[in-house]
Amino acid sequence: MSQSTRRGFLSLGVASGALLGALRPSSLLAQAQTVARALGRGVSAYGERSRFETTTRLLRDSRHPEASSSRTPLQDLQGTLTPSPLHFERHHAGIPDIDPSSHRLLIHGLVDRPLELSLAELRRLPAESRIHFLECSGNSGALWREASVAAAHTTRGTAQSTHGLTSSGEWEGVPLSVLLNEAGVRPEGTWLVAEGADASRMTRSVPLTKALDDTFVAYGQNGEALRPAQGYPLRLFVPGWEGNISIKWLRRIEVVDRPYMTREETSKYTDLLPDGRARRFTFVMEAKSVITHPSGGQRLTNPGYHQLRGIAWSGRGRVQRVEISTDGGRSWEVAELQGPVLPRAHTRFRLDWTWDGSEVVVQSRCIDETGYTQPTREELIAARGLRSGYHNNAIQSWKVSPDGTVENIYV
Amino acid sequence: MSQSTRRGFLSLGVASGALLGALRPSSLLAQAQTVARALGRGVSAYGERSRFETTTRLLRDSRHPEASSSRTPLQDLQGTLTPSPLHFERHHAGIPDIDPSSHRLLIHGLVDRPLELSLAELRRLPAESRIHFLECSGNSGALWREASVAAAHTTRGTAQSTHGLTSSGEWEGVPLSVLLNEAGVRPEGTWLVAEGADASRMTRSVPLTKALDDTFVAYGQNGEALRPAQGYPLRLFVPGWEGNISIKWLRRIEVVDRPYMTREETSKYTDLLPDGRARRFTFVMEAKSVITHPSGGQRLTNPGYHQLRGIAWSGRGRVQRVEISTDGGRSWEVAELQGPVLPRAHTRFRLDWTWDGSEVVVQSRCIDETGYTQPTREELIAARGLRSGYHNNAIQSWKVSPDGTVENIYV
Repeated sequence: MSQSTRRGFLSLGVASGALLGALRPSSLLAQAQTVARALGRGVSAYGERSRFETTTRLLRDSRHPEASSSRTPLQDLQGTLTPSPLHFERHHAGIPDIDPSSHRLLIHGLVDRPLELSLAELRRLPAESRIHFLECSGNSGALWREASVAAAHTTRGTAQSTHGLTSSGEWEGVPLSVLLNEAGVRPEGTWLVAEGADASRMTRSVPLTKALDDTFVAYGQNGEALRPAQGYPLRLFVPGWEGNISIKWLRRIEVVDRPYMTREETSKYTDLLPDGRARRFTFVMEAKSVITHPSGGQRLTNPGYHQLRGIAWSGRGRVQRVEISTDGGRSWEVAELQGPVLPRAHTRFRLDWTWDGSEVVVQSRCIDETGYTQPTREELIAARGLRSGYHNNAIQSWKVSPDGTVENIYV
Repeated sequence: MSQSTRRGFLSLGVASGALLGALRPSSLLAQAQTVARALGRGVSAYGERSRFETTTRLLRDSRHPEASSSRTPLQDLQGTLTPSPLHFERHHAGIPDIDPSSHRLLIHGLVDRPLELSLAELRRLPAESRIHFLECSGNSGALWREASVAAAHTTRGTAQSTHGLTSSGEWEGVPLSVLLNEAGVRPEGTWLVAEGADASRMTRSVPLTKALDDTFVAYGQNGEALRPAQGYPLRLFVPGWEGNISIKWLRRIEVVDRPYMTREETSKYTDLLPDGRARRFTFVMEAKSVITHPSGGQRLTNPGYHQLRGIAWSGRGRVQRVEISTDGGRSWEVAELQGPVLPRAHTRFRLDWTWDGSEVVVQSRCIDETGYTQPTREELIAARGLRSGYHNNAIQSWKVSPDGTVENIYV
């Protein structure tokens, strides 16, 4: 936090009695009573969170444990990282139970030297680690499908339910370029097909240019081995591109001379336009942001100082700027970004704000380093119509009512 | 990873048969057999790691669950972050079980407006998040106490047992300057005393200059609430300084006019010198590094390509450079640093290496942005003698034997 912001906070002139609570002798006594007087619990081999912490992922339907997706509680997250137990999930045939000692990665097709690699062999190779977001292209899809509703219509919805199919982590693995160079890609090889070991054989085509650029084969997540729900023991990681192409439980990479038009890039994960044509191979997750405080389902307990907080990201690189409106989009103010601002990573933004207790609509928009600006809902619909649920990166609007309740609103 | 390194790796000329394993039809068949053919497990509210992953913290004595410390498995970590379940522990009276709804932070002493703050009040204030290491000043202490042994003496020991009292994370909270400015520090206030709510009343004095610089009151760790073992629901976080001053289970900050000479800064956490005087208030954790691969307890299965890997850090700022020797300190080569290189944060370094199968001693040394260079064991002993176990940041040496086993060695 910059010194000027600290002054900004102080210059809000919040009385200690109003915001911080004046010190009362009775409170002092209560404080003294909370101190432990006996030896506490000892150390443990693998730690757990406090029994008072109950934040969870949101399951699509908790009555169906085989459900195919779960969402990250963005409104509860601190900082920029998503703890592994809360990383969103989207499975096409559930989570396979893979013994890493028998798992192999096959690299074949249009290569000079087909390779088959064990985990131990992969871990011995040159490694790198990167902090990146991963977002499902269906994130915020329901908002798009509801987008035809009348403006000023509000619906229930939280940052978790509307935007929780994006998460962030530090991923470690081997640059795919190392493996492909070792295998020797033949001149006619221009794409690759990556296949998962789950029962759906989740399969996507990846252009060789991206594969040789910043794509890697990941075995680590936030310091540990990948979690099973994120592809243990091995996944493809394609930074900035729609999540499903970062094939989980990766077993096979075949170098080919064209995209393979698999199910997941034809009947699914394409975007039907108003004229009946479909956008396909819409890889990049464009610049997007969401305010997480205040956000749907929360309640501001009283007027006065609040810090507007949220996350922004772009599949094209760094977040350049985030702007916030508290008047439904008429005026915009530049938010403060928490450094370091990393390419293709969740970036935390904050803005000091005094809520006067009236009804307000808060919005954020992300501008990335290419100059691209996150569109309004109206602009998105004008360009893409209403037939697709993928790649909705429209500006999100939250309405704060005078009683402090916060709801999603279509403006 | 830079393109030149990739070329470097390839130019090692490792035959695919030797390092990567040639593809055999029989393996192809085995590969095909590992693919799931049935619907896998569904999503979950709070994820767990794979049943095949067994990495744990090292307890001082597993027969005593009330033990006071546990160590991070540095040799198993990916990237730069420590997952919260594996963050090192060092408790002085165990872990108190604190209900956050009744916990309060008291700020009093030489201030104009004493404050008492609930968690909800703190979370409403201006926040920031930072990636920082946290190291116990006793880390590597046993190596120092053994340092009088003859050179070339080897002992058992792993990166975890020798260096595992350092961890890394993203911490979120409120800048202490915000709270102190709101409370109004009186002119005579030059230090503060921070006290924990554990049964030991862990208490340390902090100079006001550091408190107003980059110190914060943290409630978040790696995206979630602090773990109980790291101070839930509230801890002081003093970046770059010895871990014990980042008071866990923080309940009270008293502004005072001098250090309070508490037990933990007089009889403990001071460094006895050869002449009988003691260094005290030795706050900063100086530049340090350790190679985690290869490291004690590991075994290199065969000669050829290996990537030397490790972590480096400095309490004074950014890591400027890490140098690696594979000949016991006669010559040094600059390692590659994984970006982003953040101030007072674990920094991952790597160096491509071909092991010829002979006995070698590998070492790393960290140079930070102030120009400070991590000392040799000999230099440290010359300056500080052998009476202290705190603040051992000497260069670590690992001996690789021709059979591939790796041991700690005093050179």
